[in-house]
Amino acid sequence: MSLNKLSAVEIATQVAAGTITCEQVARDCIARMQQREPVLRAWSYVDPDLILRQAKALDARTVRGPMHGVPVGVKDIIDTVDMPTEMGSPIYAGYRPQSDASCVALLRAAGALIFGKTVTCEFAGATPGITTNPHDPARTPGGSSSGSGAAVADFMVPLAFGTQTGGSVQRPSSYCGIVGYKPSYGLINPQGVRPAAESLDTVGLMARTVEDVELSARVLTAGAPVAWLPGEARVRVGLCRTFAWDKAEAATRDAIEDAARRLSTAGFAVKNIELPASCSDLPLTRETINDYERARAMSFEWQTHRAQLSEGLARTIGKGLTIPQARYIDALNLVERCRRDVAPLFERVDVLLTPTVNGEAPLGLSHTGDHGFQSIWTQLRLPAITLPTHAGPNGMPVGLQLIGPLYEDRALLAAAQLIFRALGRGPVIHAA
Amino acid sequence: MSLNKLSAVEIATQVAAGTITCEQVARDCIARMQQREPVLRAWSYVDPDLILRQAKALDARTVRGPMHGVPVGVKDIIDTVDMPTEMGSPIYAGYRPQSDASCVALLRAAGALIFGKTVTCEFAGATPGITTNPHDPARTPGGSSSGSGAAVADFMVPLAFGTQTGGSVQRPSSYCGIVGYKPSYGLINPQGVRPAAESLDTVGLMARTVEDVELSARVLTAGAPVAWLPGEARVRVGLCRTFAWDKAEAATRDAIEDAARRLSTAGFAVKNIELPASCSDLPLTRETINDYERARAMSFEWQTHRAQLSEGLARTIGKGLTIPQARYIDALNLVERCRRDVAPLFERVDVLLTPTVNGEAPLGLSHTGDHGFQSIWTQLRLPAITLPTHAGPNGMPVGLQLIGPLYEDRALLAAAQLIFRALGRGPVIHAA
Repeated sequence: MSLNKLSAVEIATQVAAGTITCEQVARDCIARMQQREPVLRAWSYVDPDLILRQAKALDARTVRGPMHGVPVGVKDIIDTVDMPTEMGSPIYAGYRPQSDASCVALLRAAGALIFGKTVTCEFAGATPGITTNPHDPARTPGGSSSGSGAAVADFMVPLAFGTQTGGSVQRPSSYCGIVGYKPSYGLINPQGVRPAAESLDTVGLMARTVEDVELSARVLTAGAPVAWLPGEARVRVGLCRTFAWDKAEAATRDAIEDAARRLSTAGFAVKNIELPASCSDLPLTRETINDYERARAMSFEWQTHRAQLSEGLARTIGKGLTIPQARYIDALNLVERCRRDVAPLFERVDVLLTPTVNGEAPLGLSHTGDHGFQSIWTQLRLPAITLPTHAGPNGMPVGLQLIGPLYEDRALLAAAQLIFRALGRGPVIHAA
Repeated sequence: MSLNKLSAVEIATQVAAGTITCEQVARDCIARMQQREPVLRAWSYVDPDLILRQAKALDARTVRGPMHGVPVGVKDIIDTVDMPTEMGSPIYAGYRPQSDASCVALLRAAGALIFGKTVTCEFAGATPGITTNPHDPARTPGGSSSGSGAAVADFMVPLAFGTQTGGSVQRPSSYCGIVGYKPSYGLINPQGVRPAAESLDTVGLMARTVEDVELSARVLTAGAPVAWLPGEARVRVGLCRTFAWDKAEAATRDAIEDAARRLSTAGFAVKNIELPASCSDLPLTRETINDYERARAMSFEWQTHRAQLSEGLARTIGKGLTIPQARYIDALNLVERCRRDVAPLFERVDVLLTPTVNGEAPLGLSHTGDHGFQSIWTQLRLPAITLPTHAGPNGMPVGLQLIGPLYEDRALLAAAQLIFRALGRGPVIHAA
């Protein structure tokens, strides 16, 4: 097997055992990237020489980290000291930050190899980059962490950073057929990540296995290793259709119901859970909070580079600047109330099971899809994980989403691993 | 009167009326700065030519903003596109950011003149810069917003940005004898401000009047103008000694008791309010949260520039890296519980009255003072304002602190203005 197919845990284990070298891994990932990048366009910056220099330096090191030799993609709104950080915007063409973001520095310190920068929507918003879906180049990979989703799904790297303000980790993970993890708000330190809407922005991880998410999250947060659950553990699953259920395509609704049925058969305790009524306003609060904060986070670009902003982003900023403080505060207070209303649901279940996104990746590259099913949980600040368990009518991946209680990320990962084992990976079109 | 003595509101009003020019204001502020800077050392970067170019450009503009011509100092962890941002650290000597921080861009767009960068403690932490207290150069101005406090108190600028993670706006405001405003967490957008401990960091404003704080906060947040209260408004004041009361110097305790007495005599409804028992752990949670987050926010510098960090900061980072995720999460959960426990106090009172800091600015420049009385409120995320109403045994300023309910910043400012009028400015040593 080519080493680019290995998981992060496998790479770390085999490098530690001395059975493979960081350079061998890097060379296979580079080969895969060079083969497929003309179609995928997942990378805004990738330099094989720089990758190989890093790999050789890692092989030469006597002190070894827990992620030694693991290649990692970094969404291009996250600062890197040795590569440009262009934010998906011509305003930052060629921009070289002074330092690595916290999450990059922490993984580097653990021995990870920073492979390159992945294509992002403009400032992690809605205006897409040029990346295509690895399962069908006529379709969007989702966004805004578009390149991260495509590169991981296509076996260029086992792991990549994304960020989520609405659904920017979960949606591309579902569309590309990988595991997407959006932690509890704030759990992965956001220093050095370009803010979009500060009170929602969350650094997330995209991988092909739950174990890879666990390893990197543990390194980033000094977490104790997750105790994986035995097959007979009776995890309580709440099927939560949410008020957006009718917007899901029939095949997606079927996939979620199918998952609930099969989990029940497999011995999981499955019950229906409804979101509190207060949560039905979350689409409105999301728009208010996102636009108000984003308009301010983009003040400099708005004042000095307005002509270089996309029409869509300029419209959002213009709108955000007209929102009065009082309306913003009303939205913050309402979301806080929703957080309090939702917390008790987790006395009855361990995880919620809910759609990740309406359906398969849509055709075309002009729109990265709808955040309705993802931004609920981003606003609630709850940890979320997407698993690639199903396929849609066109054979494209359809994920399901699991949600845990605030800060119970490790328990969510344990439950997710068990559920993923029970349901298996979805039968999707295979990348070339 | 020299124009550098004017408030921001007065400058904006008179510039708008055409009775003074931005250049005249700038020249008087520059003159004051040049006269006093050799003793105060408040600025890490200030360039009279750049100031005058800005002033002339503002005078030439036909479109006028609500803060046209108001000189503003900017703490040197806040990005500015036309000046270095050195973070109080040799690691960032000469560093020029690519853009203005959100708060800088928003004030510039309102016509403010960015006067220069003010001295900060190293990365807004505890290791002091070289600034002296404007009332006694043998004493600290407080920190970490040291230069902002000194420059405003000394009439170099009417307004400056500070940031607060523990007590970095409130403490220097008390020590320097000015008005310090730490908004509700998140209300002033932090994009472009170097994070210290993300879940606590708050951008604040330092000025000589409550009205100046109100004007700039309104511009930054699209707030409606505050409706100032008539003299007969019966504001309910809760005298809150906190569990740190015994650490306050006798003169500070006397000052707070005196304020409560005089407010009562003046017709305010004053009662005693005790903090809930849960809050007694806030000093511990503060240390855990600060150290855990700061260690991660400083990952890059820790990995690559460790020798250029001060001993104190290196010790904090080293300590923070050993804190397990579980202990960090316990601290977050405890603070969240405190927030919920404290909220109902504001059914009984409109504002809490409490010490800002133990006492006068201590002698010496090696330590910027204790954050005990400030970090309670930073953690609770409540809006806080310090007023320079008293003096200590050495004639140095002693402030009092008013706290309002979350997001009720405008009501807090209105109450603070009324209370400041009732108590008057403290009789402090005058700057030269």
